[in-house]
Amino acid sequence: MSNPTAAMLVIGDEILSGRTRDANMYFLAGELTKQGIDLKEVRVVSDDPVAIVTAVQALAKAHDQVFTSGGIGPTHDDITADCIARAFGVHIDVRADARALLQAHYDKTGLELNKARLRMARIPDGASLIDNPVSTAPGFTIENVHVMAGVPNIFQAMVASVLPTLTGGAPLLSQTLRVNRGEGEIAETLTAAAQAFEDLSIGCYPFQVNGAYGANVVVRGTDGARVDAAVTQLAKDLDL
Amino acid sequence: MSNPTAAMLVIGDEILSGRTRDANMYFLAGELTKQGIDLKEVRVVSDDPVAIVTAVQALAKAHDQVFTSGGIGPTHDDITADCIARAFGVHIDVRADARALLQAHYDKTGLELNKARLRMARIPDGASLIDNPVSTAPGFTIENVHVMAGVPNIFQAMVASVLPTLTGGAPLLSQTLRVNRGEGEIAETLTAAAQAFEDLSIGCYPFQVNGAYGANVVVRGTDGARVDAAVTQLAKDLDL
Repeated sequence: MSNPTAAMLVIGDEILSGRTRDANMYFLAGELTKQGIDLKEVRVVSDDPVAIVTAVQALAKAHDQVFTSGGIGPTHDDITADCIARAFGVHIDVRADARALLQAHYDKTGLELNKARLRMARIPDGASLIDNPVSTAPGFTIENVHVMAGVPNIFQAMVASVLPTLTGGAPLLSQTLRVNRGEGEIAETLTAAAQAFEDLSIGCYPFQVNGAYGANVVVRGTDGARVDAAVTQLAKDLDL
Repeated sequence: MSNPTAAMLVIGDEILSGRTRDANMYFLAGELTKQGIDLKEVRVVSDDPVAIVTAVQALAKAHDQVFTSGGIGPTHDDITADCIARAFGVHIDVRADARALLQAHYDKTGLELNKARLRMARIPDGASLIDNPVSTAPGFTIENVHVMAGVPNIFQAMVASVLPTLTGGAPLLSQTLRVNRGEGEIAETLTAAAQAFEDLSIGCYPFQVNGAYGANVVVRGTDGARVDAAVTQLAKDLDL
């Protein structure tokens, strides 16, 4: 059986304007690979309702799981929760369970649960909450879409809350061969290996050190013995 | 007149598996912002022909300019050029001008222009070449799509070759106010400012230092005087 598939939607003008370098995609990609869920596509869109709604609907339809990051804070530019509700055609309002979490948190810190902070308790009908051990304000899961914060340490904590609840597949295993020759020297050998091991993915990533070309050849697959066999064959064919 | 819009397509299993952290998106976003071209969407897809063709067609239709990165090297997993040709329904083969560039380069370095390296001279009919001062093998532009390498220093050199040929708009200007209060404290003031300055974008990006919450308030727009006015008003309203 093939692995479940996933997509990610990164929401935020600050990424598209080059102000902020996204860190969540790299993190999520690594976690999903370990869990045996194949990340197939990532989209980054601006803080624009039409862009968010369109992307969520397309990704939720095409993939088993969708993970979003960004736009669930207390300020006017945090429009993700409302857009997700619109994408699924459900009602959204401050919900008692989310409000109770925030109330307890702000009681403890002595801050007021004002109108802005209450925005973070707006949860679409039918969603379940995602635990946020860092700053309390929850994410949520609706159908196959997991809606999480953009701040990296909060995003990472929410991913840790969600991932154990999902059915994974076979983790993707990989082995890397470092070759101190240019890609053009080894390309034919790689093509032959890709044909002989059609069930595996063989990638070639060039680098340059002190003016000399080299390449990392990465063999990926879910069957460790097959990955081993391909790497052994490649090492022999490349005289490594 | 509003600015031209752009999209980016990042192609590569190595990004989606978490092996490599993409650096090209952040670079391109910054360059486009300076040039007055609004980056509206980024997609990352795997080395899969259907995924690449579908994404290129969708992005080329929806935006003024499309920039791709990755998959134009000499090895079997470099399928971008063929996919772009398919997306535009044109023929692709080794082209004389690209071949001549590579031949001169390899003659100089004493390496053989073998079959694998010749793959890098495969250019779709009707495309114009993008100069690659780093490693010679060219990118290409077909209609509104600019096809470039994934290796960051080559990608950056190709962007530098392409950008001066494009019509830009008004560069996006931004000013940042650092506020040593949590987002929840300042949200109402920001909402009022966003309403008073509807022509600007006002973003709020929280941070945490030594356990205390703060936020960077970023005001963006193409009219410097308006950005100034909004920042001055915000500083006053926030008692900064």
